[in-house]
Amino acid sequence: MSKNEIKVGILGATGAVGQRFVQLLENHPWFRVTALAASERSAGKPYSEAVTWRLDTPIPAAVVEIPVSLCEPGLDCDLVFSGLDSAVAGPIEAAFAAADYAVVSNSKNHRMDEDVPLLVPEVNADHCGIIDRQRKRRGYGRGFIATNPNCSTIGLAMALKPIADRFGITRVAVTTMQALSGAGYPGVSSLEILDNVLPYIGEEEEKMERETLKLLGRFHDGRIKNARTVVSAQCNRVHVQDGHMECVSVALENETDVNGLAEALRNHRGPPQELGLPFAPRRPIIVRDEPDRPQPRIDRDAENGMAVTVGRIRPCPVLDMKFVVLSHNTVRGAAGTAILNAELLRTRGFLD
Amino acid sequence: MSKNEIKVGILGATGAVGQRFVQLLENHPWFRVTALAASERSAGKPYSEAVTWRLDTPIPAAVVEIPVSLCEPGLDCDLVFSGLDSAVAGPIEAAFAAADYAVVSNSKNHRMDEDVPLLVPEVNADHCGIIDRQRKRRGYGRGFIATNPNCSTIGLAMALKPIADRFGITRVAVTTMQALSGAGYPGVSSLEILDNVLPYIGEEEEKMERETLKLLGRFHDGRIKNARTVVSAQCNRVHVQDGHMECVSVALENETDVNGLAEALRNHRGPPQELGLPFAPRRPIIVRDEPDRPQPRIDRDAENGMAVTVGRIRPCPVLDMKFVVLSHNTVRGAAGTAILNAELLRTRGFLD
Amino acid sequence: MSKNEIKVGILGATGAVGQRFVQLLENHPWFRVTALAASERSAGKPYSEAVTWRLDTPIPAAVVEIPVSLCEPGLDCDLVFSGLDSAVAGPIEAAFAAADYAVVSNSKNHRMDEDVPLLVPEVNADHCGIIDRQRKRRGYGRGFIATNPNCSTIGLAMALKPIADRFGITRVAVTTMQALSGAGYPGVSSLEILDNVLPYIGEEEEKMERETLKLLGRFHDGRIKNARTVVSAQCNRVHVQDGHMECVSVALENETDVNGLAEALRNHRGPPQELGLPFAPRRPIIVRDEPDRPQPRIDRDAENGMAVTVGRIRPCPVLDMKFVVLSHNTVRGAAGTAILNAELLRTRGFLD
Amino acid sequence: MSKNEIKVGILGATGAVGQRFVQLLENHPWFRVTALAASERSAGKPYSEAVTWRLDTPIPAAVVEIPVSLCEPGLDCDLVFSGLDSAVAGPIEAAFAAADYAVVSNSKNHRMDEDVPLLVPEVNADHCGIIDRQRKRRGYGRGFIATNPNCSTIGLAMALKPIADRFGITRVAVTTMQALSGAGYPGVSSLEILDNVLPYIGEEEEKMERETLKLLGRFHDGRIKNARTVVSAQCNRVHVQDGHMECVSVALENETDVNGLAEALRNHRGPPQELGLPFAPRRPIIVRDEPDRPQPRIDRDAENGMAVTVGRIRPCPVLDMKFVVLSHNTVRGAAGTAILNAELLRTRGFLD
Repeated sequence: MSKNEIKVGILGATGAVGQRFVQLLENHPWFRVTALAASERSAGKPYSEAVTWRLDTPIPAAVVEIPVSLCEPGLDCDLVFSGLDSAVAGPIEAAFAAADYAVVSNSKNHRMDEDVPLLVPEVNADHCGIIDRQRKRRGYGRGFIATNPNCSTIGLAMALKPIADRFGITRVAVTTMQALSGAGYPGVSSLEILDNVLPYIGEEEEKMERETLKLLGRFHDGRIKNARTVVSAQCNRVHVQDGHMECVSVALENETDVNGLAEALRNHRGPPQELGLPFAPRRPIIVRDEPDRPQPRIDRDAENGMAVTVGRIRPCPVLDMKFVVLSHNTVRGAAGTAILNAELLRTRGFLD
Repeated sequence: MSKNEIKVGILGATGAVGQRFVQLLENHPWFRVTALAASERSAGKPYSEAVTWRLDTPIPAAVVEIPVSLCEPGLDCDLVFSGLDSAVAGPIEAAFAAADYAVVSNSKNHRMDEDVPLLVPEVNADHCGIIDRQRKRRGYGRGFIATNPNCSTIGLAMALKPIADRFGITRVAVTTMQALSGAGYPGVSSLEILDNVLPYIGEEEEKMERETLKLLGRFHDGRIKNARTVVSAQCNRVHVQDGHMECVSVALENETDVNGLAEALRNHRGPPQELGLPFAPRRPIIVRDEPDRPQPRIDRDAENGMAVTVGRIRPCPVLDMKFVVLSHNTVRGAAGTAILNAELLRTRGFLD
Repeated sequence: MSKNEIKVGILGATGAVGQRFVQLLENHPWFRVTALAASERSAGKPYSEAVTWRLDTPIPAAVVEIPVSLCEPGLDCDLVFSGLDSAVAGPIEAAFAAADYAVVSNSKNHRMDEDVPLLVPEVNADHCGIIDRQRKRRGYGRGFIATNPNCSTIGLAMALKPIADRFGITRVAVTTMQALSGAGYPGVSSLEILDNVLPYIGEEEEKMERETLKLLGRFHDGRIKNARTVVSAQCNRVHVQDGHMECVSVALENETDVNGLAEALRNHRGPPQELGLPFAPRRPIIVRDEPDRPQPRIDRDAENGMAVTVGRIRPCPVLDMKFVVLSHNTVRGAAGTAILNAELLRTRGFLD
Repeated sequence: MSKNEIKVGILGATGAVGQRFVQLLENHPWFRVTALAASERSAGKPYSEAVTWRLDTPIPAAVVEIPVSLCEPGLDCDLVFSGLDSAVAGPIEAAFAAADYAVVSNSKNHRMDEDVPLLVPEVNADHCGIIDRQRKRRGYGRGFIATNPNCSTIGLAMALKPIADRFGITRVAVTTMQALSGAGYPGVSSLEILDNVLPYIGEEEEKMERETLKLLGRFHDGRIKNARTVVSAQCNRVHVQDGHMECVSVALENETDVNGLAEALRNHRGPPQELGLPFAPRRPIIVRDEPDRPQPRIDRDAENGMAVTVGRIRPCPVLDMKFVVLSHNTVRGAAGTAILNAELLRTRGFLD
């Protein structure tokens, strides 16, 4: 282990998000998985025995024999990624932060805490400044909690950000067609979704309508001030494995046209691109001109699943402009953004 | 054949819509299929040989041996249902109308002609009055052309009508998730839609944005005046056999709440219900209160596929109210509405 | 309630098979549901509250308010249909039989008991004679247990029976492609079966290889003697809602050809047809000549799901003849056959 | 272009198989695509305009601007891969061979010609010796025709070969569940396969029953002598994108058990492995011990789609042993094997 490597633990390591963390962190240039934690049922077993591995690549050799620990401070690492179930994530993550661990979480529990950053590095990297306030208020030392948004919110916010910056957004109406992997395993029964659409995903619309405002908000004077944008979401589950599609309409403060919007999206770059972070896609937003793109199966893996794809940009007779956004819900929409968040936080000195 | 029965021909009888006409008209109390017409390739053959029948019920015995004719006036019938391809429908339908046939068409060609009614009986039954003008302008005698809207427009318009009547609608944003049968046979390749969503259906958005205005328009002073409502549509194809889902948001002139909207929808009745027409659903709009309904597989066959189902009525932060509409795209959305149109036209004396 | 009606209870009434019993028994001319029993969690609640109803037709009005009982003798009925989980079915069914209830079960627990009939009325109706022996050995009075086979075995046995009778069968090789509903609810996760085939169904091959021999066996001298046929099964789960497909090859004692085999299948009739039992399909086996039939979606509902469909009959270069069988796995393959069994048992006097 | 590179043309370059050739040959260490040929409709256009590219990776930059030629000798290359439709492949391929081109074809037309090798390098590499006879008989100079088998036959033959070598095979019964990509584009309509299985694929069973015998045959005394094995195939299309599953039973000359069979399969190596050919999978056959593998979605891409995966090895009560085979139908089952054939033929001097 090189002296620049950071030891990493994964909380909820046997779950769907935890497995994705384990998979994506294999061969990471900065982070090295040294601790895996899960519930009592798994504790003590080697990871390969404790987990029912469901990803298409094999379990990374480096973690096969790591014994699974309980989710309690004391893990041999400095940074933990949390893929914990929201039923238990809240106090566990707080305990780790209090014990000087950097906690980078995909769970919803602390997302809306006023002193916790809800981060997508291409959208609101500066919000990580709130961590200073968090440490002071909560009496944390080196520890802190940072979170990423809900899967459907991440794709949306990435597409909205350059539009908001350039033209101003007052209102957003979004209808999603979300992939089955978003519900975890076993998740949706095959009998429910075969030849069907489910027009409801519990709490999803509330998350999109709430989290987007924090993401597009301003960090100023040591506080995050939510954007005043109004968001309306309608969320559906469709018969797709990976890749959330979103049909979006936006009302703008300043007029533009198809080319103006496309250019703003296409040229968008954020700190991950500028810093050349390991998990940064070269282009965070890919704009396609074909009339029938993006499509989940064809476009979800663009830039290793870290880019979002936007297509069908056109005027909206009701609001101002409309378009379609696709993002890989378990990579860019979950573990991938969490890892990018940790990379960003390191470059900003929060892991020192 | 009882003397009250009306002889019916079907144009495009071997196609997807034509087959559905043949199927739905079996045992119709008023209409009796006496003529089947298709292209030269089929002409002269008995129907059962000419057609590649794709519906789940068998070919009705009464039509098995009817020889297929060419699509030219001279058919032994008074009324023709047209399921013709839009590449040829325009002049053929006009020729039949000029030759004293009542033409009730599912094709798009004449839908927006200012003197042709675009009819859904529960929405704008009075628009059939424009036929008088049509006959006069075009010099038709007993003949005329009446049309029904595009499949995705029918479900939308049925849900909008009672809302427009009671509260006034200024703007409509709709995102559809449409079934594969809407593309006809062979239609969408399995390789395109497996594990996928297609965010584009040629011309569909334009049809929804245009036809809805005519449907919600007023017939006044011998003319149809389009509604001033603004409609924005985003249309997608999903992995479902039958049943178009639509996520709708509406801006209203007069405020209401969930109960008010639900009541307006639930209580809506039109001439088909009042007249007890054979194809009329008892309830044209079924409102469901469960959080996860409607669903295509479960709800599409409500009232033999002639009812639309509305669910998830709730306030919309961007416009005023939002909800989900489902309709069976090949029954209520095509042949079923055409038959109901013919039934209405008969009660109004246009088939005399 | 007419004096000829028989009061019926359903054990496991809230489960997948139990719901199907409730659905199929609505309007049954002989049987009237008067008792519904399930686990403690449901006991005491009205059926409509206790059940999460998953079938496409509504809950029959007659049972909506029946309070759910525990699965213990004392139910107000003479006959019970059991859709109990095999984890608990064994002793409960025995207790009901001991308490003078006729028990007609879909569960596997007693299927291979030597004194319990494993019945498909068109295959081995005479096996019900073993009930006399059962009553004597077990000291039952009016009570008894009768069972139906596993879903995939029923379709196979129905196709094999007329062939065995006419030509003799020595060996059977069968590969199945089974529907998702066979796994119950929630059953197979959508993530497991989307774009996939699962080449394994727990215990299914053993059941087919074992139960088929009892079904084709002879009832002689008060005992059931298994057939000497050798059966080899390979079972797969595919992306289909209802309808098990089976590719079958058979080795025969006496030679035949395609026409001979088709005729034997097509002409097969059993006691249900002769007696005109309410649930009897007119033709238990439908033979199709098209090269690409049967297909699950098109053929599973033939004769209300009670007929099996056979197609692609042709010589097999390895054994003698091969063909494809389709049956509706939750109707003919489960609750439907159980009801037909009860009808048969009544006509044979076992319910007196 | 290095002097060791071989110039390659692709016949039928715009079709499904042709596109796969183009994709797989990008960056090939020996072969460089210098000519693309298709029908008159495409001729003269740059490849990127002529083709409707349907693969998930982009069109290789090196071929984007190659102008499409007609399928006639005169192409600037020494070797042609043929993905031509069988309606035209026969005489075109013969014309190229006569004009001194090496023709490596995926089309069925010449597969069963007695002087044409039907090759899978791990199965019957020595059959390429028949090319000497072909050249002599047909008067070819440097040219020749070599073919690969049908997609479903390749996976089967690869699994059978080591079993035949070690234990002898007298009879084979196979039931396939084949992927949609095997039917090309547009191929199977989504309306035919949604919630369905198609129990028929035109000519597929005949091909499997015929081609397997040639593959397992002996090349002796300048002739290929078919194996005496008897094969019976039942072929089905299922709702899977890529990956053919096959349930196989075999009768053996010499007894073995699960371990013996597994070992024979697992240890099999052929000339591609020994020679380290560029497209050779390290292990041509992967044996899995889990009860529920192989599965198409999880296992089809093993070794870049060039390995076949065998699982569920167990005794067969009817024949001797049974198991499940999976192969990627458009890689190992088509273009990938053709390329491996060309690599083999080069090492044997046939491209000199």
